[in-house]
Amino acid sequence: MKGISLLGGPLELIPEGFFEEQKNNNQLLLGVDRGSLFLVEKGLIPDLAIGDFDSLKKEELVKIEKVVKDIRYSNPVKDLTDSELMIKSAFENYHLTSLEVYGATGGRLDHFLVNLFTFLKPEFQVYAPKVTLIDRQNIIKFFLPGKHYIKPVEGYKYLGIVNLTDVENLSIQGAKYPLKDYNSTYPISFASNEFVAGKTVEIYFEKGTVAVIYSKDLDRFANI
Amino acid sequence: MKGISLLGGPLELIPEGFFEEQKNNNQLLLGVDRGSLFLVEKGLIPDLAIGDFDSLKKEELVKIEKVVKDIRYSNPVKDLTDSELMIKSAFENYHLTSLEVYGATGGRLDHFLVNLFTFLKPEFQVYAPKVTLIDRQNIIKFFLPGKHYIKPVEGYKYLGIVNLTDVENLSIQGAKYPLKDYNSTYPISFASNEFVAGKTVEIYFEKGTVAVIYSKDLDRFANI
Repeated sequence: MKGISLLGGPLELIPEGFFEEQKNNNQLLLGVDRGSLFLVEKGLIPDLAIGDFDSLKKEELVKIEKVVKDIRYSNPVKDLTDSELMIKSAFENYHLTSLEVYGATGGRLDHFLVNLFTFLKPEFQVYAPKVTLIDRQNIIKFFLPGKHYIKPVEGYKYLGIVNLTDVENLSIQGAKYPLKDYNSTYPISFASNEFVAGKTVEIYFEKGTVAVIYSKDLDRFANI
Repeated sequence: MKGISLLGGPLELIPEGFFEEQKNNNQLLLGVDRGSLFLVEKGLIPDLAIGDFDSLKKEELVKIEKVVKDIRYSNPVKDLTDSELMIKSAFENYHLTSLEVYGATGGRLDHFLVNLFTFLKPEFQVYAPKVTLIDRQNIIKFFLPGKHYIKPVEGYKYLGIVNLTDVENLSIQGAKYPLKDYNSTYPISFASNEFVAGKTVEIYFEKGTVAVIYSKDLDRFANI
Protein backbone atom coordinates (compact mmCIF):
# COMPACT_ATOMS: atom_id res chain seq x y z
CA MET A 1 0.00 0.00 0.00
CA LYS A 2 1.10 3.55 -0.69
CA GLY A 3 0.95 6.31 1.88
CA ILE A 4 0.45 10.05 1.89
CA SER A 5 1.76 12.07 4.81
CA LEU A 6 1.18 15.71 5.66
CA LEU A 7 3.58 17.55 7.97
CA GLY A 8 3.05 21.00 9.45
CA GLY A 9 4.87 23.12 6.82
CA PRO A 10 3.22 26.18 5.25
CA LEU A 11 -0.09 25.38 3.50
CA GLU A 12 0.73 27.69 0.60
CA LEU A 13 3.46 25.25 -0.49
CA ILE A 14 1.06 22.30 -0.79
CA PRO A 15 0.37 21.54 -4.47
CA GLU A 16 -2.97 22.78 -5.75
CA GLY A 17 -5.74 20.20 -5.51
CA PHE A 18 -3.93 18.13 -2.85
CA PHE A 19 -6.79 17.97 -0.36
CA GLU A 20 -9.43 17.27 -3.02
CA GLU A 21 -7.34 14.40 -4.38
CA GLN A 22 -7.09 12.74 -0.98
CA LYS A 23 -10.88 12.51 -0.75
CA ASN A 24 -10.93 9.90 -3.48
CA ASN A 25 -7.73 8.15 -2.50
CA ASN A 26 -7.49 4.76 -0.88
CA GLN A 27 -3.94 5.33 0.23
CA LEU A 28 -2.96 5.39 3.88
CA LEU A 29 -3.24 8.96 5.19
CA LEU A 30 -0.80 10.12 7.88
CA GLY A 31 -0.75 13.42 9.72
CA VAL A 32 2.20 14.76 11.66
CA ASP A 33 1.64 17.43 14.33
CA ARG A 34 -0.15 20.43 12.78
CA GLY A 35 -0.42 18.46 9.53
CA SER A 36 -3.02 16.26 11.29
CA LEU A 37 -5.09 19.35 12.05
CA PHE A 38 -4.83 20.60 8.45
CA LEU A 39 -6.24 17.24 7.25
CA VAL A 40 -9.08 17.16 9.78
CA GLU A 41 -10.03 20.76 9.01
CA LYS A 42 -10.33 19.84 5.32
CA GLY A 43 -12.69 16.98 6.18
CA LEU A 44 -10.07 14.24 5.84
CA ILE A 45 -9.48 11.65 8.57
CA PRO A 46 -5.85 10.57 8.97
CA ASP A 47 -5.41 6.83 9.55
CA LEU A 48 -2.53 7.74 11.82
CA ALA A 49 -1.66 10.99 13.61
CA ILE A 50 1.73 11.45 15.25
CA GLY A 51 3.23 14.32 17.17
CA ASP A 52 3.87 16.01 20.45
CA PHE A 53 1.16 18.43 19.28
CA ASP A 54 2.70 21.07 21.51
CA SER A 55 2.10 23.86 19.02
CA LEU A 56 -1.65 23.13 18.94
CA LYS A 57 -4.28 24.72 21.14
CA LYS A 58 -6.21 22.29 23.32
CA GLU A 59 -9.39 22.57 21.24
CA GLU A 60 -7.38 21.89 18.07
CA LEU A 61 -5.99 18.66 19.54
CA VAL A 62 -9.50 17.64 20.63
CA LYS A 63 -10.65 17.97 17.01
CA ILE A 64 -8.00 15.43 16.00
CA GLU A 65 -8.63 13.08 18.93
CA LYS A 66 -12.36 12.94 18.11
CA VAL A 67 -11.88 11.35 14.69
CA VAL A 68 -8.45 9.67 14.46
CA LYS A 69 -8.27 6.04 15.61
CA ASP A 70 -4.48 5.66 15.80
CA ILE A 71 -2.90 8.62 17.59
CA ARG A 72 0.67 8.38 18.83
CA TYR A 73 1.86 11.03 21.26
CA SER A 74 5.56 11.66 21.08
CA ASN A 75 7.75 13.08 23.79
CA PRO A 76 9.24 16.51 22.93
CA VAL A 77 12.53 15.37 24.50
CA LYS A 78 13.36 12.45 22.26
CA ASP A 79 15.87 10.94 19.94
CA LEU A 80 13.59 10.88 16.89
CA THR A 81 11.70 13.85 15.54
CA ASP A 82 7.97 13.57 14.87
CA SER A 83 8.55 13.19 11.14
CA GLU A 84 11.10 10.45 11.77
CA LEU A 85 8.65 8.61 14.03
CA MET A 86 6.09 8.89 11.22
CA ILE A 87 8.50 7.35 8.68
CA LYS A 88 9.29 4.46 11.06
CA SER A 89 5.62 3.82 11.84
CA ALA A 90 4.60 4.05 8.19
CA PHE A 91 7.00 1.36 7.06
CA GLU A 92 7.31 -0.84 10.18
CA ASN A 93 3.71 -0.90 11.43
CA TYR A 94 1.76 -0.17 8.26
CA HIS A 95 4.19 -1.88 5.87
CA LEU A 96 3.86 0.78 3.19
CA THR A 97 5.60 0.20 -0.13
CA SER A 98 6.11 3.93 -0.74
CA LEU A 99 5.35 7.24 0.90
CA GLU A 100 4.75 10.76 -0.42
CA VAL A 101 5.45 13.48 2.14
CA TYR A 102 3.87 16.94 1.88
CA GLY A 103 4.34 19.94 4.17
CA ALA A 104 8.00 19.02 4.68
CA THR A 105 9.49 22.15 3.10
CA GLY A 106 9.45 25.88 3.73
CA GLY A 107 8.70 27.61 7.01
CA ARG A 108 11.27 26.86 9.69
CA LEU A 109 14.39 25.66 7.90
CA ASP A 110 15.71 23.60 10.82
CA HIS A 111 12.57 21.50 10.28
CA PHE A 112 13.07 21.25 6.51
CA LEU A 113 16.67 20.12 7.05
CA VAL A 114 15.49 17.41 9.46
CA ASN A 115 13.29 16.09 6.66
CA LEU A 116 16.05 16.37 4.07
CA PHE A 117 18.72 14.73 6.23
CA THR A 118 16.59 11.96 7.82
CA PHE A 119 17.63 9.37 5.25
CA LEU A 120 21.32 9.87 5.98
CA LYS A 121 20.87 8.20 9.39
CA PRO A 122 21.92 4.56 9.19
CA GLU A 123 18.58 3.28 10.55
CA PHE A 124 16.65 5.30 7.94
CA GLN A 125 18.76 4.47 4.87
CA VAL A 126 16.51 1.52 4.04
CA TYR A 127 13.54 3.90 3.56
CA ALA A 128 15.42 6.39 1.36
CA PRO A 129 14.35 4.87 -1.99
CA LYS A 130 10.70 4.67 -0.90
CA VAL A 131 10.09 8.28 0.16
CA THR A 132 9.34 11.35 -1.96
CA LEU A 133 9.08 14.89 -0.58
CA ILE A 134 6.70 17.04 -2.61
CA ASP A 135 5.80 20.71 -2.61
CA ARG A 136 4.35 23.21 -5.06
CA GLN A 137 7.61 23.57 -7.02
CA ASN A 138 9.75 20.57 -6.10
CA ILE A 139 9.79 16.78 -6.07
CA ILE A 140 12.68 15.33 -4.01
CA LYS A 141 13.77 11.69 -4.29
CA PHE A 142 16.62 9.95 -2.46
CA PHE A 143 19.13 7.48 -3.86
CA LEU A 144 21.68 5.07 -2.42
CA PRO A 145 24.87 4.02 -4.24
CA GLY A 146 24.44 2.33 -7.63
CA LYS A 147 23.03 3.18 -11.04
CA HIS A 148 19.67 4.94 -11.24
CA TYR A 149 17.43 6.07 -14.09
CA ILE A 150 15.79 9.48 -13.63
CA LYS A 151 12.76 9.85 -15.87
CA PRO A 152 11.43 13.29 -16.77
CA VAL A 153 8.23 14.39 -15.03
CA GLU A 154 5.88 16.56 -17.07
CA GLY A 155 5.99 20.22 -16.10
CA TYR A 156 9.30 19.98 -14.25
CA LYS A 157 11.98 21.64 -16.34
CA TYR A 158 14.94 21.54 -13.94
CA LEU A 159 16.89 18.72 -12.41
CA GLY A 160 19.03 19.27 -9.31
CA ILE A 161 21.40 16.52 -8.25
CA VAL A 162 22.61 16.97 -4.71
CA ASN A 163 25.04 14.79 -2.81
CA LEU A 164 23.88 15.21 0.78
CA THR A 165 27.04 13.54 2.08
CA ASP A 166 30.53 12.87 0.80
CA VAL A 167 30.25 11.08 -2.52
CA GLU A 168 32.48 8.93 -4.70
CA ASN A 169 32.49 8.74 -8.51
CA LEU A 170 29.26 10.65 -9.04
CA SER A 171 28.36 10.62 -12.73
CA ILE A 172 25.44 12.18 -14.58
CA GLN A 173 24.71 11.02 -18.12
CA GLY A 174 22.13 12.14 -20.67
CA ALA A 175 21.39 15.49 -19.00
CA LYS A 176 22.15 18.96 -20.36
CA TYR A 177 25.20 19.21 -18.10
CA PRO A 178 26.91 15.82 -17.72
CA LEU A 179 29.30 15.00 -14.88
CA LYS A 180 31.94 12.28 -14.69
CA ASP A 181 33.41 10.51 -11.64
CA TYR A 182 33.09 13.44 -9.28
CA ASN A 183 34.36 13.04 -5.73
CA SER A 184 33.52 15.33 -2.85
CA THR A 185 34.01 15.24 0.90
CA TYR A 186 31.10 17.68 1.49
CA PRO A 187 27.56 18.25 0.13
CA ILE A 188 27.17 20.03 -3.22
CA SER A 189 23.98 21.05 -5.03
CA PHE A 190 24.46 20.59 -8.78
CA ALA A 191 21.52 22.83 -9.61
CA SER A 192 19.66 23.86 -12.76
CA ASN A 193 20.50 20.81 -14.83
CA GLU A 194 17.86 19.90 -17.40
CA PHE A 195 16.44 16.91 -19.23
CA VAL A 196 17.27 16.84 -22.94
CA ALA A 197 14.36 16.20 -25.33
CA GLY A 198 12.45 14.20 -22.74
CA LYS A 199 15.23 11.63 -22.36
CA THR A 200 15.89 9.66 -19.19
CA VAL A 201 18.96 10.76 -17.22
CA GLU A 202 21.30 8.21 -15.68
CA ILE A 203 23.13 8.82 -12.42
CA TYR A 204 25.74 6.63 -10.81
CA PHE A 205 27.77 6.87 -7.62
CA GLU A 206 29.65 4.51 -5.35
CA LYS A 207 29.34 6.03 -1.90
CA GLY A 208 27.00 8.46 -0.16
CA THR A 209 23.37 9.54 -0.42
CA VAL A 210 22.14 11.66 -3.32
CA ALA A 211 18.92 13.67 -3.55
CA VAL A 212 17.40 14.30 -6.96
CA ILE A 213 15.26 17.44 -7.08
CA TYR A 214 12.82 17.96 -9.93
CA SER A 215 11.81 21.61 -9.91
CA LYS A 216 9.96 24.24 -11.89
CA ASP A 217 9.48 27.97 -11.91
CA LEU A 218 6.06 29.19 -10.89
CA ASP A 219 3.93 30.48 -13.75
CA ARG A 220 4.38 34.10 -12.84
CA PHE A 221 8.13 33.73 -13.36
CA ALA A 222 8.05 31.45 -16.39
CA ASN A 223 9.88 32.40 -19.55
CA ILE A 224 7.60 33.04 -22.49
CA MET B 1 31.37 48.29 4.65
CA LYS B 2 28.39 46.00 5.03
CA GLY B 3 26.44 44.64 2.10
CA ILE B 4 22.87 43.62 1.40
CA SER B 5 22.20 41.16 -1.41
CA LEU B 6 18.89 40.11 -2.93
CA LEU B 7 18.63 36.85 -4.88
CA GLY B 8 15.66 35.72 -6.95
CA GLY B 9 13.78 33.65 -4.35
CA PRO B 10 10.07 34.18 -3.67
CA LEU B 11 9.23 37.75 -2.64
CA GLU B 12 6.73 36.54 -0.03
CA LEU B 13 9.66 35.22 2.03
CA ILE B 14 11.39 38.61 2.21
CA PRO B 15 10.98 40.12 5.71
CA GLU B 16 8.36 42.83 5.97
CA GLY B 17 9.76 46.33 5.49
CA PHE B 18 12.90 45.11 3.68
CA PHE B 19 12.59 47.37 0.64
CA GLU B 20 11.68 50.44 2.70
CA GLU B 21 14.70 49.90 4.93
CA GLN B 22 17.08 49.81 1.97
CA LYS B 23 15.97 53.29 0.90
CA ASN B 24 17.68 54.80 3.93
CA ASN B 25 20.64 52.45 3.99
CA ASN B 26 24.16 53.34 3.02
CA GLN B 27 25.19 49.72 2.69
CA LEU B 28 26.32 48.24 -0.60
CA LEU B 29 23.31 46.85 -2.46
CA LEU B 30 23.77 43.79 -4.67
CA GLY B 31 21.21 42.14 -6.93
CA VAL B 32 21.51 38.62 -8.32
CA ASP B 33 19.51 37.66 -11.38
CA ARG B 34 15.81 38.32 -10.80
CA GLY B 35 16.72 39.86 -7.44
CA SER B 36 18.20 42.80 -9.40
CA LEU B 37 14.84 43.33 -11.09
CA PHE B 38 12.97 43.16 -7.75
CA LEU B 39 15.22 45.97 -6.43
CA VAL B 40 14.85 48.17 -9.52
CA GLU B 41 11.08 47.70 -9.54
CA LYS B 42 10.96 48.91 -5.93
CA GLY B 43 12.91 52.06 -6.87
CA LEU B 44 16.24 50.83 -5.51
CA ILE B 45 19.42 50.89 -7.60
CA PRO B 46 21.79 48.00 -6.95
CA ASP B 47 25.46 49.00 -6.83
CA LEU B 48 26.22 45.68 -8.49
CA ALA B 49 23.98 43.33 -10.51
CA ILE B 50 25.17 39.82 -11.34
CA GLY B 51 23.55 37.01 -13.29
CA ASP B 52 23.02 35.24 -16.56
CA PHE B 53 19.58 36.92 -16.43
CA ASP B 54 18.27 34.10 -18.62
CA SER B 55 14.94 33.93 -16.79
CA LEU B 56 14.23 37.61 -17.47
CA LYS B 57 12.36 39.02 -20.44
CA LYS B 58 14.37 41.38 -22.61
CA GLU B 59 12.50 44.47 -21.42
CA GLU B 60 13.10 43.44 -17.81
CA LEU B 61 16.86 43.23 -18.39
CA VAL B 62 16.79 46.63 -20.10
CA LYS B 63 15.23 48.11 -16.93
CA ILE B 64 18.24 46.89 -14.97
CA GLU B 65 20.82 47.94 -17.56
CA LYS B 66 19.40 51.49 -17.63
CA VAL B 67 20.23 52.22 -14.00
CA VAL B 68 22.94 49.84 -12.72
CA LYS B 69 26.55 50.94 -13.22
CA ASP B 70 28.31 47.65 -12.44
CA ILE B 71 26.61 44.75 -14.26
CA ARG B 72 28.40 41.42 -14.56
CA TYR B 73 26.98 38.92 -17.02
CA SER B 74 27.71 35.34 -16.07
CA ASN B 75 27.86 32.38 -18.40
CA PRO B 76 25.09 29.81 -17.76
CA VAL B 77 27.66 27.05 -18.33
CA LYS B 78 30.05 27.80 -15.51
CA ASP B 79 31.79 26.49 -12.46
CA LEU B 80 30.33 29.05 -10.07
CA THR B 81 26.64 29.81 -9.67
CA ASP B 82 25.41 33.40 -9.86
CA SER B 83 25.07 33.60 -6.10
CA GLU B 84 28.63 32.30 -5.66
CA LEU B 85 29.94 34.89 -8.12
CA MET B 86 28.11 37.52 -6.08
CA ILE B 87 29.79 36.36 -2.83
CA LYS B 88 33.22 36.42 -4.48
CA SER B 89 32.68 39.88 -6.00
CA ALA B 90 31.26 41.28 -2.77
CA PHE B 91 34.29 40.35 -0.72
CA GLU B 92 37.10 40.45 -3.29
CA ASN B 93 36.17 43.52 -5.32
CA TYR B 94 34.07 45.51 -2.86
CA HIS B 95 35.93 44.35 0.27
CA LEU B 96 32.78 44.02 2.37
CA THR B 97 33.17 43.19 6.04
CA SER B 98 29.84 41.34 6.19
CA LEU B 99 26.95 40.45 3.92
CA GLU B 100 23.25 39.80 4.50
CA VAL B 101 21.63 37.69 1.79
CA TYR B 102 17.88 37.78 1.15
CA GLY B 103 15.86 35.81 -1.43
CA ALA B 104 18.12 32.79 -0.90
CA THR B 105 15.45 30.44 0.47
CA GLY B 106 12.20 28.88 -0.72
CA GLY B 107 11.15 28.38 -4.31
CA ARG B 108 13.37 25.93 -6.17
CA LEU B 109 15.15 23.88 -3.53
CA ASP B 110 18.17 23.06 -5.72
CA HIS B 111 18.80 26.82 -5.60
CA PHE B 112 18.34 27.04 -1.84
CA LEU B 113 20.78 24.17 -1.33
CA VAL B 114 23.37 25.93 -3.51
CA ASN B 115 23.13 28.88 -1.12
CA LEU B 116 23.26 26.67 1.97
CA PHE B 117 26.21 24.58 0.75
CA THR B 118 28.32 27.35 -0.84
CA PHE B 119 30.43 27.84 2.28
CA LEU B 120 31.48 24.20 2.36
CA LYS B 121 33.61 24.73 -0.76
CA PRO B 122 37.24 25.28 0.26
CA GLU B 123 37.52 28.58 -1.65
CA PHE B 124 34.38 29.93 0.10
CA GLN B 125 35.18 28.82 3.67
CA VAL B 126 36.85 32.16 4.39
CA TYR B 127 33.53 33.97 3.77
CA ALA B 128 31.44 31.61 5.97
CA PRO B 129 31.64 33.72 9.17
CA LYS B 130 30.79 36.91 7.28
CA VAL B 131 27.53 35.88 5.58
CA THR B 132 24.00 35.66 6.96
CA LEU B 133 21.01 34.28 5.03
CA ILE B 134 17.75 35.89 6.10
CA ASP B 135 14.11 35.23 5.30
CA ARG B 136 10.76 35.93 6.95
CA GLN B 137 11.14 33.14 9.52
CA ASN B 138 14.85 32.26 9.60
CA ILE B 139 18.31 33.73 10.17
CA ILE B 140 21.12 31.38 9.10
CA LYS B 141 24.73 31.87 10.18
CA PHE B 142 27.74 29.72 9.37
CA PHE B 143 30.55 28.65 11.67
CA LEU B 144 33.97 27.08 11.26
CA PRO B 145 35.67 24.90 13.91
CA GLY B 146 36.24 26.49 17.32
CA LYS B 147 34.17 27.96 20.13
CA HIS B 148 31.32 30.33 19.28
CA TYR B 149 28.86 32.34 21.32
CA ILE B 150 25.30 32.40 19.97
CA LYS B 151 23.35 35.33 21.34
CA PRO B 152 19.55 35.31 21.39
CA VAL B 153 17.81 37.49 18.79
CA GLU B 154 14.54 39.05 19.86
CA GLY B 155 11.49 37.35 18.39
CA TYR B 156 13.33 34.17 17.41
CA LYS B 157 12.29 31.40 19.78
CA TYR B 158 14.00 28.40 18.19
CA LEU B 159 17.61 27.52 17.61
CA GLY B 160 18.59 24.88 15.06
CA ILE B 161 22.17 23.68 15.03
CA VAL B 162 23.03 21.86 11.83
CA ASN B 163 26.31 20.22 10.92
CA LEU B 164 26.34 20.56 7.14
CA THR B 165 29.29 18.17 6.87
CA ASP B 166 30.84 15.48 9.01
CA VAL B 167 31.58 16.94 12.42
CA GLU B 168 33.83 16.14 15.37
CA ASN B 169 33.13 16.79 19.06
CA LEU B 170 30.11 19.04 18.52
CA SER B 171 28.97 20.42 21.86
CA ILE B 172 26.07 22.73 22.70
CA GLN B 173 26.05 24.40 26.12
CA GLY B 174 23.52 26.69 27.78
CA ALA B 175 20.61 25.77 25.49
CA LYS B 176 17.42 23.91 26.45
CA TYR B 177 18.84 20.71 24.96
CA PRO B 178 22.60 20.45 25.49
CA LEU B 179 24.84 18.17 23.45
CA LYS B 180 28.28 16.84 24.32
CA ASP B 181 31.14 15.74 22.02
CA TYR B 182 28.91 14.50 19.20
CA ASN B 183 30.56 12.97 16.15
CA SER B 184 28.86 12.35 12.83
CA THR B 185 29.98 11.37 9.36
CA TYR B 186 26.88 12.94 7.75
CA PRO B 187 24.77 16.14 8.15
CA ILE B 188 22.25 16.28 10.99
CA SER B 189 19.76 19.03 11.83
CA PHE B 190 19.48 19.37 15.62
CA ALA B 191 16.21 21.27 15.37
CA SER B 192 13.89 23.03 17.80
CA ASN B 193 16.46 23.80 20.45
CA GLU B 194 15.74 26.96 22.46
CA PHE B 195 17.49 29.70 24.35
CA VAL B 196 16.99 29.57 28.13
CA ALA B 197 15.98 32.81 29.84
CA GLY B 198 17.70 34.95 27.22
CA LYS B 199 21.11 33.39 27.89
CA THR B 200 23.87 33.09 25.31
CA VAL B 201 24.42 29.57 23.94
CA GLU B 202 27.92 28.23 23.41
CA ILE B 203 28.79 25.83 20.62
CA TYR B 204 32.09 24.10 20.02
CA PHE B 205 33.33 21.67 17.38
CA GLU B 206 36.68 20.55 16.01
CA LYS B 207 35.98 19.68 12.39
CA GLY B 208 33.35 20.56 9.79
CA THR B 209 31.01 23.46 9.03
CA VAL B 210 27.99 24.17 11.20
CA ALA B 211 24.96 26.32 10.38
CA VAL B 212 23.05 27.98 13.19
CA ILE B 213 19.42 28.69 12.32
CA TYR B 214 17.41 31.12 14.41
CA SER B 215 13.75 30.57 13.57
CA LYS B 216 10.26 31.51 14.65
CA ASP B 217 6.71 30.44 13.98
CA LEU B 218 4.60 32.89 12.04
CA ASP B 219 2.02 34.73 14.11
CA ARG B 220 -0.88 32.75 12.79
CA PHE B 221 0.65 29.56 14.23
CA ALA B 222 1.99 31.00 17.46
CA ASN B 223 1.10 29.44 20.77
CA ILE B 224 -0.95 31.68 23.01
